[in-house]
Amino acid sequence: MIDIAHLGPVELLTPKADESLTFFTDVFGMEIEGREGQSVFLRGWGDYQRFSLKLTESNTSGMAMLGLRAWSEEALERRVAAIEATGLGDGWHEGDRGRGRSYRFRDPDGHAFELYFETDRYVPPAHLVPSLKNQPQRYVGRGAAVKRLDHVNLLAADVRPSRDFAVDQLGYRLYERIELDDGTESGAWMSVSTAAHELIYTADAYGARGRLHHVAYWVDTREEVLRAADLFLDHDVYIEAAPSKHGVAQGFFLYGYEPGGNRIEVTTGGYMVYDPEQPVVVWSEAERKLGQAWRVKTIPTFHTYGTPPVAADAAVAGGH
Amino acid sequence: MIDIAHLGPVELLTPKADESLTFFTDVFGMEIEGREGQSVFLRGWGDYQRFSLKLTESNTSGMAMLGLRAWSEEALERRVAAIEATGLGDGWHEGDRGRGRSYRFRDPDGHAFELYFETDRYVPPAHLVPSLKNQPQRYVGRGAAVKRLDHVNLLAADVRPSRDFAVDQLGYRLYERIELDDGTESGAWMSVSTAAHELIYTADAYGARGRLHHVAYWVDTREEVLRAADLFLDHDVYIEAAPSKHGVAQGFFLYGYEPGGNRIEVTTGGYMVYDPEQPVVVWSEAERKLGQAWRVKTIPTFHTYGTPPVAADAAVAGGH
Amino acid sequence: MIDIAHLGPVELLTPKADESLTFFTDVFGMEIEGREGQSVFLRGWGDYQRFSLKLTESNTSGMAMLGLRAWSEEALERRVAAIEATGLGDGWHEGDRGRGRSYRFRDPDGHAFELYFETDRYVPPAHLVPSLKNQPQRYVGRGAAVKRLDHVNLLAADVRPSRDFAVDQLGYRLYERIELDDGTESGAWMSVSTAAHELIYTADAYGARGRLHHVAYWVDTREEVLRAADLFLDHDVYIEAAPSKHGVAQGFFLYGYEPGGNRIEVTTGGYMVYDPEQPVVVWSEAERKLGQAWRVKTIPTFHTYGTPPVAADAAVAGGH
Amino acid sequence: MIDIAHLGPVELLTPKADESLTFFTDVFGMEIEGREGQSVFLRGWGDYQRFSLKLTESNTSGMAMLGLRAWSEEALERRVAAIEATGLGDGWHEGDRGRGRSYRFRDPDGHAFELYFETDRYVPPAHLVPSLKNQPQRYVGRGAAVKRLDHVNLLAADVRPSRDFAVDQLGYRLYERIELDDGTESGAWMSVSTAAHELIYTADAYGARGRLHHVAYWVDTREEVLRAADLFLDHDVYIEAAPSKHGVAQGFFLYGYEPGGNRIEVTTGGYMVYDPEQPVVVWSEAERKLGQAWRVKTIPTFHTYGTPPVAADAAVAGGH
Repeated sequence: MIDIAHLGPVELLTPKADESLTFFTDVFGMEIEGREGQSVFLRGWGDYQRFSLKLTESNTSGMAMLGLRAWSEEALERRVAAIEATGLGDGWHEGDRGRGRSYRFRDPDGHAFELYFETDRYVPPAHLVPSLKNQPQRYVGRGAAVKRLDHVNLLAADVRPSRDFAVDQLGYRLYERIELDDGTESGAWMSVSTAAHELIYTADAYGARGRLHHVAYWVDTREEVLRAADLFLDHDVYIEAAPSKHGVAQGFFLYGYEPGGNRIEVTTGGYMVYDPEQPVVVWSEAERKLGQAWRVKTIPTFHTYGTPPVAADAAVAGGH
Repeated sequence: MIDIAHLGPVELLTPKADESLTFFTDVFGMEIEGREGQSVFLRGWGDYQRFSLKLTESNTSGMAMLGLRAWSEEALERRVAAIEATGLGDGWHEGDRGRGRSYRFRDPDGHAFELYFETDRYVPPAHLVPSLKNQPQRYVGRGAAVKRLDHVNLLAADVRPSRDFAVDQLGYRLYERIELDDGTESGAWMSVSTAAHELIYTADAYGARGRLHHVAYWVDTREEVLRAADLFLDHDVYIEAAPSKHGVAQGFFLYGYEPGGNRIEVTTGGYMVYDPEQPVVVWSEAERKLGQAWRVKTIPTFHTYGTPPVAADAAVAGGH
Repeated sequence: MIDIAHLGPVELLTPKADESLTFFTDVFGMEIEGREGQSVFLRGWGDYQRFSLKLTESNTSGMAMLGLRAWSEEALERRVAAIEATGLGDGWHEGDRGRGRSYRFRDPDGHAFELYFETDRYVPPAHLVPSLKNQPQRYVGRGAAVKRLDHVNLLAADVRPSRDFAVDQLGYRLYERIELDDGTESGAWMSVSTAAHELIYTADAYGARGRLHHVAYWVDTREEVLRAADLFLDHDVYIEAAPSKHGVAQGFFLYGYEPGGNRIEVTTGGYMVYDPEQPVVVWSEAERKLGQAWRVKTIPTFHTYGTPPVAADAAVAGGH
Repeated sequence: MIDIAHLGPVELLTPKADESLTFFTDVFGMEIEGREGQSVFLRGWGDYQRFSLKLTESNTSGMAMLGLRAWSEEALERRVAAIEATGLGDGWHEGDRGRGRSYRFRDPDGHAFELYFETDRYVPPAHLVPSLKNQPQRYVGRGAAVKRLDHVNLLAADVRPSRDFAVDQLGYRLYERIELDDGTESGAWMSVSTAAHELIYTADAYGARGRLHHVAYWVDTREEVLRAADLFLDHDVYIEAAPSKHGVAQGFFLYGYEPGGNRIEVTTGGYMVYDPEQPVVVWSEAERKLGQAWRVKTIPTFHTYGTPPVAADAAVAGGH
């Protein structure tokens, strides 16, 4: 039974709050929904909730928290019971901006999550009321004009326990994974919907814990991904990987680092999983060495860089 | 609880079997998976089942049957029990090509359905083995190269009872509907997934029963829809509505009539529904008169033509 | 010999200067290069000159002037001599902002032109310096982000004399034309480059003189035209014709009216003419009645509305 | 004065005639216009001439000849006179299939050219007659469905003399070039039209003479380039460089090797040059090291591999 409806909001930390905010509004094209303390709440034009990104000033980068919305109060209770049984639960807290009581926990790798059901739907102010009533917000078209939070890729010192936790305690479906020659799992792609990936764990090259690989926002077309690359270029955003197509999950991507150092992706495409008995696709080490869908070799930092930085990452980030 | 995984396969009747087959293979770009009796089994390159379209020679056109796959044997049993309680069930039958026992029933308007769980996954022959192992079949790229069955739009003399049946007995979620000034429902868009529409009922302008409005196949990009229009034009396929964007569900479309007379669509786009409490979008008669998303007036036949033809439709079909 | 390099800048009049300016900057996505008196000078990110549009406040709408740049001083002299011989010349004037001496004349229908050679190349201010040095300006991506002036469509009470003048005195090449059953020419598509149309004359339905049909700006992809339609919709810009493909010249289009009433187009696509002996394509009245490329019927106002308005047009413009 | 209308046809040699032909028809999507001796004549659906590619069986690969069409008989005479004065002329020959007398010559690097004016326009057979009369041929949509020959990139042991010859004797306009720190020119992009490149010379890494870098065919959209990459992948065509955007000339590309070993490109995009006084864009060695438009590093073989192979190339070609 699928008890999780979707992931989000995500809270990102940034040591460069002003520059990060300028990136997310002017280049990514998000709207500011509100501000509280050291945080700014941001949304894509297609997010149905009030916000999908909480950007918080900090002395470092990385992901502070990943929200998960349950399908119902009953689903919420079921998942909390399952999590509590593992001893990874942190207990109930008053919900953050716009959502009801939330259950905090950590995955085996140490990433913080909040599970909730009650949430506000977004009500646009007058200047953002859309022409089409089946759309949460006016399409402003600023910058890359990302539509909505799509997926989150976490790094884990050991992928397998966190993947098992996501499948067994949270109810994610495992669609694809990479198994190295020595039998270790270096990546796992999971989803609670027909989308081919929503929650991803990949191996942390430094064996660090609780780090973020990237947060991905959706656009509807590959042309918007290509256009985003032009915008990144002319807004001096570091492009780590220019638009191309992944082999795993077949998503079309553009990767960059926002000024705070967090890797962000503009994504679209991929395939839908309609088979209830979908077999897990297992990629071998040799297959992964073929590169991405069109045999593009993946840039080395994609396999090492994450946030918050570890010593080696800091060197990479300083180099661009 | 969502007990239906997806719809399909669909069985279409055609009085021009050879020409219809040429259309579906050469212009739509489907592969022939097999033949039995008067039927040819066809598939898009992204269909995970052996086929999604059964094309059957007949003395008329229209939809003979719509398959529905349950999530599990238990889900199948639950839905059958719910259907049987309404008296609309026809009982269990041996499954058609590639699927297990199937429960036949009719919706209140009289369309035939088959509900099943067991099904074969497609195993491609050598010349259709894909380069990417997470893809069911090689991308051949012939014609419009449709990827997979996306949605089916049925006509109903009275939309409301069939919509209620789909929601109450089958478990579909209602996302959008049109309510005329007199209170009648002229259209209902439903889904069992995050896709904004999978099963649609719209009003039959002639009050006929059991007719088909259209069958839609998915492509990944709007550019492929535009390209399909060029292919339709240069293959003498009747284009009823050139590529544009719907207001309802925001799908990007191209509508034509295959040689047998059935309306087919090449579709992409739209939005995803992630909110478990998604409010139903209700369009008024006045709002619908604004036309489609970009204020294009819908061509009149779109509101009247269906298959099999009634007297008035035959006149329309003869006119192009 | 081709003595004209390209058309532009174009001067448009608007009775709603503020609203028109907001449209051209925020929705069309142009930059303000400067202001003088009642005029604002605007440019697309790909225009090599300082501006391609001069927007001038007026008590009416329409085109005040169309610039034409010659290939050289010698080419300029040759064309001036040819024009003077027809008696349609107005004589030399000091050039407008950023260009040298200009020769004014009117085409047989009365539209004003200015022919010149000397012109300034655009030098971007610091915030608009591009990353790629072969690009005149940074890609900001605001609104539809039109790249450059592409073509201008003038209305003429009688198409033929103005077409002949463009071919014989200016040196345009005629690529396509429409000939009605009675032998009159209702449209002529001309170019001085390999682009299939740069200067177009179509028949004024009211027999008025000197009016404008539309000014078209280029974007590089059809996806940007579709995106522009979303922007028009959500910025309350009147969409006269949603994105589709012309049969004549095969351009992909979106037509709307800017707040001042002038019809503007976002365009891309079409074909290139490489044959020095390219035969003129002649469309008959019957062929035109088939509609556009994909058999979409053209909206009636497209054949009647122009600026400045005549009595009948005013009624149309008031209706939206 | 521009005396050359365009380049083409191009004659390619292949040691694997059958496989190359299958590639050009099934994957590139060209039509066979005819066969003579060891050659097959091929065309894109938008080529106005009978063919743009002559594919000739040989014991090696590379370009046998590049055609150039003059604007007129007078233009032809002018160019022949200019060439003869350099001593590089080979004299007049009877024209190849579908064209009149042709003047053969070699550029300073030794590539063979044929200059002509008279040529046949393509007349499609019944099954290839297009729906739109301003199109040379029906759009069949097979494979990548390339539209027309776009540009040719030759390798030269010394770029400068061949570039000078193209500019001075042939009348090409130089739009962009790369100048290394030591002052040598490693690439020159030239055109006789508003297209940013038609004839390119780049440095042969091995100092060999008369070799080919690549032949590029045009498609109208970037989406078609992406789609071509999927086709290459699933037809086992070697992809050297997956779709991305060049900095120089800003073309969007996909590079592969056809079975005979010749590098081919599917291209679109770029910019148009309208300025008669267009300044030449000069890229420094440091600028080129930034990679392509989106900072993708160019794959090393792109700077070394050409046809016919030299010893080092053969090793590369054997490796994939």
